[in-house]
Amino acid sequence: MAPLKLGMVGGGNDAFIGAVHRIAARIDGEFELVAGALSSTREKAKASGEALGLAPDRIYGDFREMAIRENRIKDGIDAVAIVTPNHVHYPAAREFLKRGIHVICDKPLTSTLPDARKLVKLAEESDALFVLTHNYTGYPMVRQAREMVANGELGEIRVVQVEYPQDWLTEAVEKTGINKQSEWRTDPERTGAGGSTGDIGTHAFNLAGFVTGLELESLSADLQSFVDGRRVDDNGHVMLRYKGGARGMLWCSQVAPGNENALKLRVYGAKGGLEWSQEDPNYLWLTPFGEPKRLLTRSGSGARDVANRVSRTPGGHPEGYLEGFANIYAEAARAIRAKMAGEPIPADVVFPTVQDGLAGVSFVDACVRSSARDAAWVKLA
Amino acid sequence: MAPLKLGMVGGGNDAFIGAVHRIAARIDGEFELVAGALSSTREKAKASGEALGLAPDRIYGDFREMAIRENRIKDGIDAVAIVTPNHVHYPAAREFLKRGIHVICDKPLTSTLPDARKLVKLAEESDALFVLTHNYTGYPMVRQAREMVANGELGEIRVVQVEYPQDWLTEAVEKTGINKQSEWRTDPERTGAGGSTGDIGTHAFNLAGFVTGLELESLSADLQSFVDGRRVDDNGHVMLRYKGGARGMLWCSQVAPGNENALKLRVYGAKGGLEWSQEDPNYLWLTPFGEPKRLLTRSGSGARDVANRVSRTPGGHPEGYLEGFANIYAEAARAIRAKMAGEPIPADVVFPTVQDGLAGVSFVDACVRSSARDAAWVKLA
Amino acid sequence: MAPLKLGMVGGGNDAFIGAVHRIAARIDGEFELVAGALSSTREKAKASGEALGLAPDRIYGDFREMAIRENRIKDGIDAVAIVTPNHVHYPAAREFLKRGIHVICDKPLTSTLPDARKLVKLAEESDALFVLTHNYTGYPMVRQAREMVANGELGEIRVVQVEYPQDWLTEAVEKTGINKQSEWRTDPERTGAGGSTGDIGTHAFNLAGFVTGLELESLSADLQSFVDGRRVDDNGHVMLRYKGGARGMLWCSQVAPGNENALKLRVYGAKGGLEWSQEDPNYLWLTPFGEPKRLLTRSGSGARDVANRVSRTPGGHPEGYLEGFANIYAEAARAIRAKMAGEPIPADVVFPTVQDGLAGVSFVDACVRSSARDAAWVKLA
Amino acid sequence: MAPLKLGMVGGGNDAFIGAVHRIAARIDGEFELVAGALSSTREKAKASGEALGLAPDRIYGDFREMAIRENRIKDGIDAVAIVTPNHVHYPAAREFLKRGIHVICDKPLTSTLPDARKLVKLAEESDALFVLTHNYTGYPMVRQAREMVANGELGEIRVVQVEYPQDWLTEAVEKTGINKQSEWRTDPERTGAGGSTGDIGTHAFNLAGFVTGLELESLSADLQSFVDGRRVDDNGHVMLRYKGGARGMLWCSQVAPGNENALKLRVYGAKGGLEWSQEDPNYLWLTPFGEPKRLLTRSGSGARDVANRVSRTPGGHPEGYLEGFANIYAEAARAIRAKMAGEPIPADVVFPTVQDGLAGVSFVDACVRSSARDAAWVKLA
Repeated sequence: MAPLKLGMVGGGNDAFIGAVHRIAARIDGEFELVAGALSSTREKAKASGEALGLAPDRIYGDFREMAIRENRIKDGIDAVAIVTPNHVHYPAAREFLKRGIHVICDKPLTSTLPDARKLVKLAEESDALFVLTHNYTGYPMVRQAREMVANGELGEIRVVQVEYPQDWLTEAVEKTGINKQSEWRTDPERTGAGGSTGDIGTHAFNLAGFVTGLELESLSADLQSFVDGRRVDDNGHVMLRYKGGARGMLWCSQVAPGNENALKLRVYGAKGGLEWSQEDPNYLWLTPFGEPKRLLTRSGSGARDVANRVSRTPGGHPEGYLEGFANIYAEAARAIRAKMAGEPIPADVVFPTVQDGLAGVSFVDACVRSSARDAAWVKLA
Repeated sequence: MAPLKLGMVGGGNDAFIGAVHRIAARIDGEFELVAGALSSTREKAKASGEALGLAPDRIYGDFREMAIRENRIKDGIDAVAIVTPNHVHYPAAREFLKRGIHVICDKPLTSTLPDARKLVKLAEESDALFVLTHNYTGYPMVRQAREMVANGELGEIRVVQVEYPQDWLTEAVEKTGINKQSEWRTDPERTGAGGSTGDIGTHAFNLAGFVTGLELESLSADLQSFVDGRRVDDNGHVMLRYKGGARGMLWCSQVAPGNENALKLRVYGAKGGLEWSQEDPNYLWLTPFGEPKRLLTRSGSGARDVANRVSRTPGGHPEGYLEGFANIYAEAARAIRAKMAGEPIPADVVFPTVQDGLAGVSFVDACVRSSARDAAWVKLA
Repeated sequence: MAPLKLGMVGGGNDAFIGAVHRIAARIDGEFELVAGALSSTREKAKASGEALGLAPDRIYGDFREMAIRENRIKDGIDAVAIVTPNHVHYPAAREFLKRGIHVICDKPLTSTLPDARKLVKLAEESDALFVLTHNYTGYPMVRQAREMVANGELGEIRVVQVEYPQDWLTEAVEKTGINKQSEWRTDPERTGAGGSTGDIGTHAFNLAGFVTGLELESLSADLQSFVDGRRVDDNGHVMLRYKGGARGMLWCSQVAPGNENALKLRVYGAKGGLEWSQEDPNYLWLTPFGEPKRLLTRSGSGARDVANRVSRTPGGHPEGYLEGFANIYAEAARAIRAKMAGEPIPADVVFPTVQDGLAGVSFVDACVRSSARDAAWVKLA
Repeated sequence: MAPLKLGMVGGGNDAFIGAVHRIAARIDGEFELVAGALSSTREKAKASGEALGLAPDRIYGDFREMAIRENRIKDGIDAVAIVTPNHVHYPAAREFLKRGIHVICDKPLTSTLPDARKLVKLAEESDALFVLTHNYTGYPMVRQAREMVANGELGEIRVVQVEYPQDWLTEAVEKTGINKQSEWRTDPERTGAGGSTGDIGTHAFNLAGFVTGLELESLSADLQSFVDGRRVDDNGHVMLRYKGGARGMLWCSQVAPGNENALKLRVYGAKGGLEWSQEDPNYLWLTPFGEPKRLLTRSGSGARDVANRVSRTPGGHPEGYLEGFANIYAEAARAIRAKMAGEPIPADVVFPTVQDGLAGVSFVDACVRSSARDAAWVKLA
């Protein structure tokens, strides 16, 4: 089958996540990048498009222009990847969704809760698919963990411990050198009301929900901005109460020296516990209560179909972040192809949805509201 | 020098911590066990004393009797180790303190806050020393971590993450088999108002304070009893606000399958971070911000005097729980010998005090009060 | 720049390494697969080509046919990936090299030493490049380790410990189920005289040489076939003497339960030591003698330009086997593009060569000869 | 029961292993040190004895004197610990064995093979017990590993990988500072013909034999002295052939920067594999072929009676080197008490014997002989 035709909004020369999306789209050969509005600055958009080898007439200075024209031309893009700063997600997605072009959008869904709600509405009204790249749900052993919980192998879930510490904002961005990343990700106008909560707390929250299937009832958050002058939180402590009685803690930080991208999930039930770390993603620790710990490895003896289906290499040949990310693209491709063929989306296709995105933005909103009220318990709005 | 003469209250045949104290007291040859009121049951006290080879006239059926007689006889005990269930700590300690016999007491200090306060008063009025076995402060690399923080090597401390999960109470004690441990440790009359918070949360709280030197301002706690019919908490989530602006999270649990005794402390400051795990106590991870992680090993290249002084073996010859515990006894011995010689206690002697014990009982009390008020912020009473 | 046009020999439907090569070629968008002789069976070659979406006229039933036609047509392939069983490497490579088509060939170079020598001669006479996919040399932290040794940071190298244990051949292939992999890789006609020595020992030998820059003087090998009826070695113990005085041990095994793909290299010099494990490839342990161990992470604080140049993601976003493999393809692409532009190959392009391949086949030959002579010391032929 | 009365030969003020023996003897309260010939220098012997609080008349300047007098006096020592440099083991042991005093002797057995043989003879003729402190056999999880192999849980053993690297002799002792340890341990007159092979290679060899129960058929050794002027080996590579067909590799080194005391054993059989590391001794990795790895922990869910019997603390309360060492003393005490009671030694008492010691000295001798003959295969003499 010919690759799907992909456009990209954002992801110009000095961006981080745009390059990640491009590799992820490419790994399985399911997408071909053919168009782009790669920057909000026209010259940079042009230079970036040329650097990527796009045809000159498919390099756009503006995402709306791209949506309009790609929708009209023969062989226009099938899908668009939106990889801009957060505040652009909504206006960009809108232009494509309303023209029936499938959207693959980076997280968090939007920079504000109202935008998130409008985007949900738009997505639900559109024929096009909306895929959110909460990429950690693409890791094979995360898929397996989810299945194990769903199967009841851990018993009723009691305790969830999830954390996502980093250290790259330990010092003021002025001190370590302003780069595009540190600049917009600490600017509430572009990143949203949450800093670490929005950037990585949403990942942690999403991962915990994805694996456990639990729905949040309320949370109590204590957020801090440790670096002088920082306008968004750079550290967050959150207590979680899930419906049904499970309880949890979530920690996100961008000021924890020695942590690069240390997302970690631990889930404990009445019958067992499991543990997974993003930096060593090929391993899943499982302890049935009263038995020795087991180290399950991706594609190894304890790996199951649900994990093997989204693996590319045998056990001991480590897969990483890009492969996990690529699994979101691969799932998107399967769904898009089904749509294009007028068939139902296969039941085993799994990807984060616009509803998951709304939950994430609601999580940030709730953290900010709770923290403003001295860590009062609040529900997701 | 001849060993100090030690008595013991509690620690009869089927106890866990009594045997630990006896080995800890013996490792450095500083103490000799010569008397005991090893059980509240006379027959058991007798059998236990005989099993330990105590002289018949130094086996007591009652701690008060022991305090009185040992105080009177020539060569009576110099110190007593109190290793009973929590509710007996206060009445037992009282009898010895008021007779000038040094007390080495297991944690938590007492089962109630009023008892803790009374014990502080008694200890302060007594000539005798009061040593609390928050044994984790005896680990060499914990001592080093503390010195590093005190030296400012981590910069101003911002974030403290401490946790102490276990799994031995995952099921109802009736199901896994009632033993002496699980019985009294889940009975609020004997263990106190806190279950996991009292038994292990106090250790975590103490360790965080010991290493960082921070004083708690307030906490917000969400405690649970996951096992049906359990009358004390078996899992606790606590947010911490330290004086001066540092923030923290504390998790204690006895229902987290796959965790044996997984006390872990992580401390992050403006200039660096460190990490230590009780189950692998010979290692201390240090990251000066912007530099690679370093694995400091006990008695290894990065170990310092403060750690080496309380180490017995070269690097790579692992020391463990008993050696860390023994360091508390060794420090106690140094202090007691100084007292006996009428000299000041050497400045580098470090052991947990009755005040640390009061802080621990206040911590449990605050957790219980906060949790009862829906995790409201409360100060230590 | 348009992607280079790639053909493939071998790598049909049930192959393992063909799929790896295809992903590796795709990750950076530098190659496009346009032609293939994907199986020695015509029907399978056709079915495999169709499954990969190749144009019907570029699906070949025979590699010679492909070489001839692709050499003639406009827009014929720029390079070919040879991913067949070992005994086909030489005849296939010959057809392309002599027509000036660049060759990217899986390891070991050939199944016999005479073939290896002929291939070296052919490659040296050809204008085309020959790239051998000793893929582990593509890992960023391996590149960094090599630079550190070359810089003298470890001092004069004394000891090399390298091992590559697996467990997938622990039982007879008849018992665990014959698959294409286990079948040809245990058949001396196709795999060569060495079993584990050829399949993975060559990787270990190559990696040790790549990182240390040392040249082997002689070896002493004790090879075993533990599984009844196996016709090639499934475990090999080798002592190494390098020129200049360094000494080493090499262990390769396919019968070591609990090992998936556990290639590990440790290098010790007069001033320091380092350690790297393939299954956790983002980490490099470095110990300058007398200082604490340091954990260097890919793209982290201790990572250097030589590693960063071949990394795609920030620290903490793990890269794996496929990215390391893709680095060989990326280096090949840089070299090929330089060739096509008539420019010298950039000085920092690094890939395993046909000479490295000859060294590997010589290593296997020497192991087999030594083992046959009761582990006598032999030189590489 | 009253503690056994222990004397000590060697172990004066600046010794390392003497202090270890004293703690090990004390941990379980089974021995009381009452006499000593703690140094070959009379003044130092006196000072050391006083520092340990020995009665003046039981401080000896000479081991023979001690043997004679202690044998005569009422309440003379029951056993003697010999912790001198290697060349004194034989003459010292002789004096006690021939007087019926039990001997607990450090390893290696002797500094020469003839001495070892004479000592075997003496020990076999004596009524006294001879216990060799190959202390690593005292670790609980080593005991369990041994039982698992004996039970056939790993199937027929095929491959043994054992290593013991250190780094403390990386530089010339003149450079790092001569201390008592580095001085005699690099002097062939006192340490014996082997350097690293004798000091730590014997431990590795003993451990492999202890766990697997295999007997060596022959070995091929390549020994080096990397440091200029060093008169004994500081690095050794050894290939092993066991009776019955198992094969192994042994590496010992004292010049491997980053290794403190990294004794590690891996054993692979037809049905499974196991792995144990001395620096993390509470863990035992077990992989039944085709199943996930299991992490067995001391006193944890997968621990067995054979390990639990020699454990003192619950799972998660790490035990270390001293506790493992103490287990040798505890076993010795059980055997000695049985002897004293005229009863047979209990069947489950396990300790290294004089025969194990002879095997160790023979191992060193064979390594030296083999290496001198260019790593020819030699049998243990």
